[in-house]
Amino acid sequence: MLSKIFYPSSVAVVGASRTRGKIGNEILRNLIYSGYRGGIYPVNPNAEAILGLKAYPTVKEIPYSVDLAIIAVPAKIVPSIMKDCVEKGVKGAVIISSGFSEVSNRELEDEVKRIASGKVRIIGPNTIGIINTANNLNASFAPNMPLKGNIAFITQSGALGGALIDWTIREKIGLSKIISVGNKCDVGDEELLEFLAKDKETKVIAMYIEAIKDGRRFMEVAKKVSKLKPIVVVKAGRTEAGKRAASSHTGALAGSFEIYKAAFKQCGVIYANDTEELFDKAIALAEQSPAKGKRVAIVTNGGGAGIMAADACEELGLLVPELSEKTQSTLKEFLPEIASTRNPIDIAGDAGYERYKATIDVVLKNNEVDAVIVIFVHTALTEPVEPARALVECLQRAKKPVVGCWIGGYEVEEAIRILKEENVPNFPTPKRAVKALSALIRQGEVLYDID
Amino acid sequence: MLSKIFYPSSVAVVGASRTRGKIGNEILRNLIYSGYRGGIYPVNPNAEAILGLKAYPTVKEIPYSVDLAIIAVPAKIVPSIMKDCVEKGVKGAVIISSGFSEVSNRELEDEVKRIASGKVRIIGPNTIGIINTANNLNASFAPNMPLKGNIAFITQSGALGGALIDWTIREKIGLSKIISVGNKCDVGDEELLEFLAKDKETKVIAMYIEAIKDGRRFMEVAKKVSKLKPIVVVKAGRTEAGKRAASSHTGALAGSFEIYKAAFKQCGVIYANDTEELFDKAIALAEQSPAKGKRVAIVTNGGGAGIMAADACEELGLLVPELSEKTQSTLKEFLPEIASTRNPIDIAGDAGYERYKATIDVVLKNNEVDAVIVIFVHTALTEPVEPARALVECLQRAKKPVVGCWIGGYEVEEAIRILKEENVPNFPTPKRAVKALSALIRQGEVLYDID
Repeated sequence: MLSKIFYPSSVAVVGASRTRGKIGNEILRNLIYSGYRGGIYPVNPNAEAILGLKAYPTVKEIPYSVDLAIIAVPAKIVPSIMKDCVEKGVKGAVIISSGFSEVSNRELEDEVKRIASGKVRIIGPNTIGIINTANNLNASFAPNMPLKGNIAFITQSGALGGALIDWTIREKIGLSKIISVGNKCDVGDEELLEFLAKDKETKVIAMYIEAIKDGRRFMEVAKKVSKLKPIVVVKAGRTEAGKRAASSHTGALAGSFEIYKAAFKQCGVIYANDTEELFDKAIALAEQSPAKGKRVAIVTNGGGAGIMAADACEELGLLVPELSEKTQSTLKEFLPEIASTRNPIDIAGDAGYERYKATIDVVLKNNEVDAVIVIFVHTALTEPVEPARALVECLQRAKKPVVGCWIGGYEVEEAIRILKEENVPNFPTPKRAVKALSALIRQGEVLYDID
Repeated sequence: MLSKIFYPSSVAVVGASRTRGKIGNEILRNLIYSGYRGGIYPVNPNAEAILGLKAYPTVKEIPYSVDLAIIAVPAKIVPSIMKDCVEKGVKGAVIISSGFSEVSNRELEDEVKRIASGKVRIIGPNTIGIINTANNLNASFAPNMPLKGNIAFITQSGALGGALIDWTIREKIGLSKIISVGNKCDVGDEELLEFLAKDKETKVIAMYIEAIKDGRRFMEVAKKVSKLKPIVVVKAGRTEAGKRAASSHTGALAGSFEIYKAAFKQCGVIYANDTEELFDKAIALAEQSPAKGKRVAIVTNGGGAGIMAADACEELGLLVPELSEKTQSTLKEFLPEIASTRNPIDIAGDAGYERYKATIDVVLKNNEVDAVIVIFVHTALTEPVEPARALVECLQRAKKPVVGCWIGGYEVEEAIRILKEENVPNFPTPKRAVKALSALIRQGEVLYDID
């Protein structure tokens, strides 16, 4: 049923406007210029045509079938629009309009829902819309179309969602679907999780949540879905100050954070502390496989960065085991005397392609560690690209997740691109790399019942 | 005395090399091409000239006076070089060479120090060198010359220091001096703190520390210096895994992290958890003034981002007080009905120049808050530059620190540039903005004995 919302044959934009800067104009623009190939029908009783498309006075007067209606009109006339949608046989509606339960106008929201009566499924109200990069459907007033990718993003905050889309473009993070859920009057988090669990473009589900409506149902669904696809959640409204802000924002009661956190853990949801961590973890989960245990090998050409990675591992409950004598002997065969083979494996500042390759090969093959973090620290004596090539060449044989941490400026960008091409995520600090890796370890626990 | 090291009239590079990629070549290159205007004398017994400069067989044979010697020769011949330096009357030496106490070769290090006998002051050994952006002195093998600025960076890890310099260039963070301290056989952290306290180009001191040699002395000095200039420290080797790595790296005993943390607090040192946080906090301290209390106003055009900022404040021990009825009434005079005036002040998604300006003005002027975080969330309906202009225009009257959090992609970059020009630091997530702000509040406590 939700597939008609995300893969509609045609879309009506109710409240389409000729005026640049108005929501009804921005949405129509996004629909037209993002490359969606289905029918697009502006609805506006006072216009003949908008942005080159013929406009219709009402949804009912559109002479073609309509799968999805995007509704951007004042709240008080949404009920009558919904009535038209039902009569027209529209399958889904994204209600952009605000002025409903988020400002305590619950009756109006209930009325719209009653009219839709399950025949028209509703996303919203009070949302910036939805985006599906698979069919270039941008039914939103997000500022730009995101890059294609396999992370689905469900956000309870519309504006934040829009800004984060922009941020993902700059950070070259690809997304599959973006759903700004708004007040969740009909389609809620649970149904979206079930839909995304089956969505072939989605590999990871990232969520920004202020409040969950039905905790028990969320946990049931999340427990199933998290076994199929990783779910990463950032929960806002954790503190008293945050909860007060959340209640002003969406009228939602944020509930006790401790209960949320315990519930997330129980149902296999991976927790993130802010949006940066949310996407760091989602990227790692999208690009690498879950780990089969929590033992981490750290390979580095810089001692300091290795120490910081080791600290971060232990602080997050991961293990940095000292390697066996046998493995250390193997490493000593090709590493210089000043190298440290204990773990972190410090292969020394002048390490290049050969030393990186041989070392990574050893840790990927042996059974003393479950995951690997490879650090490269840029100095005048080191060349960032060759170690990256060494890493990606080792991956053919890898059955362990690997994350990169190339530290430097413009000169490490080409290396990061090489890594990214082979699905090795890179993070700018050891701490962020370790946090991302911890998500792969956590997902392994969810899948394999390790502890 | 250290001034001859950072402001030398002339520099000898002992171990200067003609071969690209060798340390002795890279250092000479950096010295020549970064714009240092003093004398540069390569020392190499087997070369007539290097990179266009006349080379000398020994330091003693340089016919001019030499203030600073950069020594990049095998460890075992460093004693004889030091003897030459003493005889030549060199004032300071940066010993790049490794192979001393970090690999348990303490006797050699002691011998060099004995020869120098305090006449030649030593930075290192086992360092990537020093940089002073004020006189364009790049006596290091860092990959690039950093931008000029007012953050001094002392790093116990050379390679990491070099990579971070590169990273600061990309992030447009300016530095005053960079000191890779290495084994700290002579000039230690304390003396550098005292020197930097008087250095007019330095406003903030950022440190990466693995181990402090003399805790009591460090605390004495830090306690004094932190009242003059903020000191921010990231301490690596916090955990067992990290300590093991640190002992392999520099041979230093990292000590109990809890003791370090308590000591830092006592002597007014601001703590950072990783290098990203180190520079976030240093930037805030370099650009904004310390806060006179811990009450924070959050101004936002996006509810979700406001909630996350409120959460971060409370989690870090800052206060987000509900504003007085009087202040809320004032705000309600110009804010739309859907706005929230409690704090976070959510001025609604369509807020532009006027609404940002009026709101920021109110919170900067009233006495209910001590610091302000201004958030801008980019959507298709918002324009990032005008709110930035509004913020910088309010600053004329500001006696409170302000940090920005413009969230978005390429389209917020111009706004961030406008903020930066007027010394308003911007951070990409509410959490990072709040953490940076917390450093301004902490420094206020150090200065004004608030709690």
